[in-house]
Amino acid sequence: MPERPIAFQDLYPDDVAHCYGCGKLNEQGHQIKTYWEGDQTLTRFTPEPYHTAIPGYVYGGLLASLVDCHGTGTAAAAAAAARGIRLGEDPLPEGEQAPRFVTASLEVRYLKPTPLGPELLIRGIIEEVSEDRDPSRGVRKVSSRITVEAEGEVTVEGRVTAVRMPESLISGPE
Amino acid sequence: MPERPIAFQDLYPDDVAHCYGCGKLNEQGHQIKTYWEGDQTLTRFTPEPYHTAIPGYVYGGLLASLVDCHGTGTAAAAAAAARGIRLGEDPLPEGEQAPRFVTASLEVRYLKPTPLGPELLIRGIIEEVSEDRDPSRGVRKVSSRITVEAEGEVTVEGRVTAVRMPESLISGPE
Repeated sequence: MPERPIAFQDLYPDDVAHCYGCGKLNEQGHQIKTYWEGDQTLTRFTPEPYHTAIPGYVYGGLLASLVDCHGTGTAAAAAAAARGIRLGEDPLPEGEQAPRFVTASLEVRYLKPTPLGPELLIRGIIEEVSEDRDPSRGVRKVSSRITVEAEGEVTVEGRVTAVRMPESLISGPE
Repeated sequence: MPERPIAFQDLYPDDVAHCYGCGKLNEQGHQIKTYWEGDQTLTRFTPEPYHTAIPGYVYGGLLASLVDCHGTGTAAAAAAAARGIRLGEDPLPEGEQAPRFVTASLEVRYLKPTPLGPELLIRGIIEEVSEDRDPSRGVRKVSSRITVEAEGEVTVEGRVTAVRMPESLISGPE
């Protein structure tokens, strides 16, 4: 185990590390960082003052984005966990990088307004992990329940279903 | 009818026009503009080059944000329509501004990757409009089905349930 855990997103292959929400190579983006915390996953994120919904509250689109990218990160960790690897804590097998998942569907329920200012805690609970029909490909689909918490209160609840990134996507559109 | 339609968002009261997605007063934000098109609503938006998911494709969090704010805009228009006013085309009664809705829930299904580059068309179809129990408050809740289209193909399908903004929100958190 490394001395300090590495964020899941920092283990994504460089050619798929440009996501505005979570890519370490997107300088304008949010660059969220997700880690295990027990058997849940955790991202800490402090919105910028301009991420306003109405004055004083966080913009719902940002909250949806955080749920989304936290969900794909959680899926990557779930896929590694299915092989007995605790992503960011255990070393990956020689020559391997973290698996990369993309969102198939996203649901977000805004339970109450999220105050703008405090750090947000985004937590993921892995609910369903399905293997690919081709066993050499490992996990194909992961569903997680995700919450956003501000000042100890859950303000947003979401669900992300993420699927293994198709190889065909990696080179971009034709 | 004004010579050119006015965007729904440009009719929101100034004190609730700071939304990162759609507020005309948020200089860093997306400032989306939604109009009627027949009995549907339409927003045109061209993502920035850094709104990447994986290279070549639009970030899912941005797509969720567009669905979200298009949904609240559509809800405002639906509430005005329930009073016989075509928002952005008909004048509002003296001293009135557009009603302001907030998102209660958001669902987004990513049907296929959305190419980054082309202008996106975000369309809303109003599905359900519920009146408040207090008839003086008019419409309380609006559900819309929303699609995102790139180069003639629907790549994202969503649903937004938006509710009339509670008065208590307008002054910000305590």
